[in-house]
Amino acid sequence: MGMVGGTLDAFIGGVHRRAAIMDGEIELVCGAFSSSPEKSKETGKALYLPEDRVYANFEEMILKEKQLPEGERMDFISVVTPNHVHAAPTKLALENGFHVVCDKPITLNVKEAEEIVELVEKTGLVFCLTHNYTGYPMVKEAKEMIASGAIGKIRKVIVEYPQGWLSTMVEVTGNKQAAWRTDPSKSGAGGSLGDIGTHAENLAEYITGLKITQLCADLTIFVEGRQLDDDANILLRFNNGAKGILQDSQIANGEENDLNIRVYGETGGLQWRQMEPNTLIHKTQQGVRHIRTGVGNLSKAAQVHTRIPAGHPEGYFEAFANLYRNFAIHVRAHQEGRKADPVYDFPTAQDGLRGMKFVDTVLASDKSDIKWTTFE
Amino acid sequence: MGMVGGTLDAFIGGVHRRAAIMDGEIELVCGAFSSSPEKSKETGKALYLPEDRVYANFEEMILKEKQLPEGERMDFISVVTPNHVHAAPTKLALENGFHVVCDKPITLNVKEAEEIVELVEKTGLVFCLTHNYTGYPMVKEAKEMIASGAIGKIRKVIVEYPQGWLSTMVEVTGNKQAAWRTDPSKSGAGGSLGDIGTHAENLAEYITGLKITQLCADLTIFVEGRQLDDDANILLRFNNGAKGILQDSQIANGEENDLNIRVYGETGGLQWRQMEPNTLIHKTQQGVRHIRTGVGNLSKAAQVHTRIPAGHPEGYFEAFANLYRNFAIHVRAHQEGRKADPVYDFPTAQDGLRGMKFVDTVLASDKSDIKWTTFE
Amino acid sequence: MGMVGGTLDAFIGGVHRRAAIMDGEIELVCGAFSSSPEKSKETGKALYLPEDRVYANFEEMILKEKQLPEGERMDFISVVTPNHVHAAPTKLALENGFHVVCDKPITLNVKEAEEIVELVEKTGLVFCLTHNYTGYPMVKEAKEMIASGAIGKIRKVIVEYPQGWLSTMVEVTGNKQAAWRTDPSKSGAGGSLGDIGTHAENLAEYITGLKITQLCADLTIFVEGRQLDDDANILLRFNNGAKGILQDSQIANGEENDLNIRVYGETGGLQWRQMEPNTLIHKTQQGVRHIRTGVGNLSKAAQVHTRIPAGHPEGYFEAFANLYRNFAIHVRAHQEGRKADPVYDFPTAQDGLRGMKFVDTVLASDKSDIKWTTFE
Amino acid sequence: MGMVGGTLDAFIGGVHRRAAIMDGEIELVCGAFSSSPEKSKETGKALYLPEDRVYANFEEMILKEKQLPEGERMDFISVVTPNHVHAAPTKLALENGFHVVCDKPITLNVKEAEEIVELVEKTGLVFCLTHNYTGYPMVKEAKEMIASGAIGKIRKVIVEYPQGWLSTMVEVTGNKQAAWRTDPSKSGAGGSLGDIGTHAENLAEYITGLKITQLCADLTIFVEGRQLDDDANILLRFNNGAKGILQDSQIANGEENDLNIRVYGETGGLQWRQMEPNTLIHKTQQGVRHIRTGVGNLSKAAQVHTRIPAGHPEGYFEAFANLYRNFAIHVRAHQEGRKADPVYDFPTAQDGLRGMKFVDTVLASDKSDIKWTTFE
Repeated sequence: MGMVGGTLDAFIGGVHRRAAIMDGEIELVCGAFSSSPEKSKETGKALYLPEDRVYANFEEMILKEKQLPEGERMDFISVVTPNHVHAAPTKLALENGFHVVCDKPITLNVKEAEEIVELVEKTGLVFCLTHNYTGYPMVKEAKEMIASGAIGKIRKVIVEYPQGWLSTMVEVTGNKQAAWRTDPSKSGAGGSLGDIGTHAENLAEYITGLKITQLCADLTIFVEGRQLDDDANILLRFNNGAKGILQDSQIANGEENDLNIRVYGETGGLQWRQMEPNTLIHKTQQGVRHIRTGVGNLSKAAQVHTRIPAGHPEGYFEAFANLYRNFAIHVRAHQEGRKADPVYDFPTAQDGLRGMKFVDTVLASDKSDIKWTTFE
Repeated sequence: MGMVGGTLDAFIGGVHRRAAIMDGEIELVCGAFSSSPEKSKETGKALYLPEDRVYANFEEMILKEKQLPEGERMDFISVVTPNHVHAAPTKLALENGFHVVCDKPITLNVKEAEEIVELVEKTGLVFCLTHNYTGYPMVKEAKEMIASGAIGKIRKVIVEYPQGWLSTMVEVTGNKQAAWRTDPSKSGAGGSLGDIGTHAENLAEYITGLKITQLCADLTIFVEGRQLDDDANILLRFNNGAKGILQDSQIANGEENDLNIRVYGETGGLQWRQMEPNTLIHKTQQGVRHIRTGVGNLSKAAQVHTRIPAGHPEGYFEAFANLYRNFAIHVRAHQEGRKADPVYDFPTAQDGLRGMKFVDTVLASDKSDIKWTTFE
Repeated sequence: MGMVGGTLDAFIGGVHRRAAIMDGEIELVCGAFSSSPEKSKETGKALYLPEDRVYANFEEMILKEKQLPEGERMDFISVVTPNHVHAAPTKLALENGFHVVCDKPITLNVKEAEEIVELVEKTGLVFCLTHNYTGYPMVKEAKEMIASGAIGKIRKVIVEYPQGWLSTMVEVTGNKQAAWRTDPSKSGAGGSLGDIGTHAENLAEYITGLKITQLCADLTIFVEGRQLDDDANILLRFNNGAKGILQDSQIANGEENDLNIRVYGETGGLQWRQMEPNTLIHKTQQGVRHIRTGVGNLSKAAQVHTRIPAGHPEGYFEAFANLYRNFAIHVRAHQEGRKADPVYDFPTAQDGLRGMKFVDTVLASDKSDIKWTTFE
Repeated sequence: MGMVGGTLDAFIGGVHRRAAIMDGEIELVCGAFSSSPEKSKETGKALYLPEDRVYANFEEMILKEKQLPEGERMDFISVVTPNHVHAAPTKLALENGFHVVCDKPITLNVKEAEEIVELVEKTGLVFCLTHNYTGYPMVKEAKEMIASGAIGKIRKVIVEYPQGWLSTMVEVTGNKQAAWRTDPSKSGAGGSLGDIGTHAENLAEYITGLKITQLCADLTIFVEGRQLDDDANILLRFNNGAKGILQDSQIANGEENDLNIRVYGETGGLQWRQMEPNTLIHKTQQGVRHIRTGVGNLSKAAQVHTRIPAGHPEGYFEAFANLYRNFAIHVRAHQEGRKADPVYDFPTAQDGLRGMKFVDTVLASDKSDIKWTTFE
């Protein structure tokens, strides 16, 4: 693995590194960690990389690594830069035969995303977008239960992603994470929408197997002076006739990172919260069942994404690592010319493109006086 | 107290009776329990009423009780009939000098509600609408905290009322509660909206002290053959610039009676769930506080609505009884020609009228292609 | 009902009154509320009793009521005085043909309790001891499940009753509840043990159907100057070979009233907490089920102790009222010369005697250097 | 790191590997994974180790690695074998200058543990015993709070470790984990006591800073045919006068891995559960506070053991990794001849020796008819 972005003080770079190495299948072999060669070197040193594998920029990394003999050179790049630096390294890597893991959202806009989808299809290389929340075992179980009809035809979906950390203007007080996320030139046209709303959209469609077809959005900038939405309330309609709500917020004061989803079908309901990820609640008119990671007869999908017996809580890093582990399985299958078992799934470039279109559609709806805006 | 409606097999009649007598301040002295004189007599007998105080209909009850000497005759009526029989007894009682407790929604439509508001104002009698959920001590505490600025200016309000009991066509299988609630001639133009959505609307405005000014609704009838909405998703805008969501459902399969609210302000958030009513969660960026009925320094409003030390759970009946107790305090004050302490509050005819207008506004929005419909 | 004790400022008197009247089956007709005739009168007046039914003391009440014609005179007395005034009114009432509801613990010591048991047996009158926590629907469900083998042969029982309100010397600062409870002449030989430990003992034996046969106790007085235990840790052995722990505390700082029990059998476990009383958790190696009041197919025992559909929380008063309601059913059956349905059960004088022996046995064990002390 | 034990199908070996590499500070460079050279090779291959660093046994590993040049050779061994193979590799490693991480319990008996303590003291090498539950941020916070007097002088400690996985005789059905744990020759004299009871003992003393001085134990073998205790109920007395209870079980049917602790002091109480490890509950008579990983002003100890912002759940692996990370910090300090910051703490050989004595003392108490047995 070669990393693009992810200096020591970055949030998501460290997450990717820990996730990548968790199962002993992936090794960090090189990196272009920063646009500042100094910071890049410093990071590389701290990560015990040889100096000659720490590059000044991603272009250099991709081109030089390509010269290295197979087995020695990196197999893939991991893109953990702010959103506006997702497309360029991804495209260059794909064009030069490297697989790619890319943080979400996939790009700054739909056009870039379409180019990447096209490149992935043309090259046949493996591309993983880290909508990491789909990596939890209980999310897998929920998806399998719904697919097998455990709650009947879906009628209502409520997906929420409230955070409170942007309740004040922290972006001007030295909070680096806040600064780029609230800057349209680095983050794209969506604020909370792009940062966390796309996670919610992805999770809802992933778990239910449905597609959002229409939406009605009300975005707000609550913190004065901010340029991008910090709150979104959206009505949803799905392709099977189901209705729903998606709300995200970064001004839900006191909330940490409370992604959660409730799905109601004709015969039951399911509920999952990211902050207590090892419990999936299944409600019917006969009672409430708490399905727990590692307990009882779970789906194969839940089982293969669990590392340890029940009651030893697995969390964010483990779910994130499931994406890398699955990606590695697909890369190996690709190298060996065979197909990987589809149970080892991960979000694709298509999912990323859908996320970008979601952002655009929500923004269009927000500006419209008409109630419903078509999605796709 | 004289009761209108509320035979033995009714749901809400028994609730009102238990709530009324809980504090030993109110006695059931007469009733017109059913349009069937037989059933009315049977109920009266089971409730140990003398035969001559069990009436054939509410008209008879009101007119005959009026003839009885003060001190013996009932002081007020309690209207616990289906919605279409709310207005007539209420109006007749007010016109004949009786105070009124009326189950919600106040009437079948706005017009009737306006007439009642007018009568209440004209007569100066005491009228209580049983939006019972405002009777919980932790709802009082939430209201007081917000009024005193504990979470700053409000930005976002999410209020939900999911139930699952109408997930199938139970109204045709002998479920009396379901039958009248899904019949527009008895329930009014709103289905879930009138039955529980108005509770949510009332709770949100009560706790926050804000008014909804615009809304955008998507109502659904999920169960085929049903005539009224069994699900509602609504975007809200408030008079201070806050945004919000109100959703209710009677097809949220597996949900019991999960009324809940989250309010986020500039400096913190509050969360309350009716099914665990003795906990109010206060979140800030410094941590999470579980405020508990009876624990620590609570507002006077919370204290006077609590009957027992902490850890002895008070529930639905006790909250409901708080309305009756407060109503009784106001009736007594009225009788003695003085003003009652406003801490002993309860929902009014004005709240009821607002609920009816809410139903109308949501229905109009649901039919409209325009995003926002003005409320009031 | 005639009440002995229970002035307006007492804790448990008000609970008994609310519980008694909840279902409209029982009426307070007279009382001897205090050893002070002034306070007694004041209480009687506040409760709307006629002056001539407010008595100077329980002797007068019992003897004068006996003179009244049947139908007018009270049917039973309710004893809600501090522990040292339980035996005398109970015995006098039984001797004069009145049924009795008595707050727990039944008496000040074993000898008095034995006399009451004997009198109850001799007179055939109905006696109910208000171990009120057995009145919750989910306690009934737990008992039924265990009796029907739902968790197999029981192996381990953990019952706890932590409170924190006596963490400091509140008994000298005007806290009336604390004052008599920490005074051996009024409370008996057990402090926390008698006050709440007996509830725990009763609950454990009630739910499991087992008997404690041996115990090993460590009692403590943590608050300097106090005369009775404020904390108890006790190892238990049961008659079927099961093991267990009973711990209670009134210095578990920050705890409210957290009575809870866990029972593990050969095939599953059950868990119940009084502070969230409408959930019974059933755990097996296949998963966790939350059994909820009013949801799904519950036992008849759970059903007949529930007043309202699921999701409308019933609490402490309702559980307490279940004892009174069942007592009333038995009194009526007694009056009509028939047997009441055993599903309407309540704690008996025998249970009370067992509680007194439990206190004595624990105290003996606490003083002993030998590990195990036999119970019974 | 060189690993002793930990073939691919072992439980704890994989945990150690993931924990060790999580922060990119430690690399697995060699191993003696099994007494079967075949299985050892297979494991080494799967872990991408060069063949010549996969050894036939730990003696060979230690002696051959010693021959390798500094920088290339392993710095320490990680002992993840069943308990009876803890002492020998540990001692040989220490004698040959290698630091040691050892799974708990430290040895099979007190004598071996004393030898290791002595060797650690003599050599000055770094030894870490993986009582991993002390690695959670909220355990650190609890310890710091208590040390700083946040709940006052401690009065009562309840520590529990219930599991249900040994509810039946799974050790004869091919469950390798169960087989060695229930075999006294491999596990030592304690069953549940050694396996999980020592975790509970360690956690209680770690968090409170107190020492258990007396105990009274009741051990049981519930599953017929089993040779070691599968359940333990123990009364505790502490060196400051506090009282307590320790209970563990492997037949608490339906429980997963529910280590939890409650500590009550003169001014408040603390509660922590391993299965929801990111919440520490602080209760006082003023209310309940949920202290959360990453939220608000936490102690330095909590902060340096947290990897990611609030709401991204960290779990078992991360807590375990905290021990390895801290161990690595100490090893590096040792190599550089300086002292490491004590905030980076981990359980020591002394803790391990104390655990072995705890097992012995509990076993002695269990056999004794005298109530109290002195610990130390």
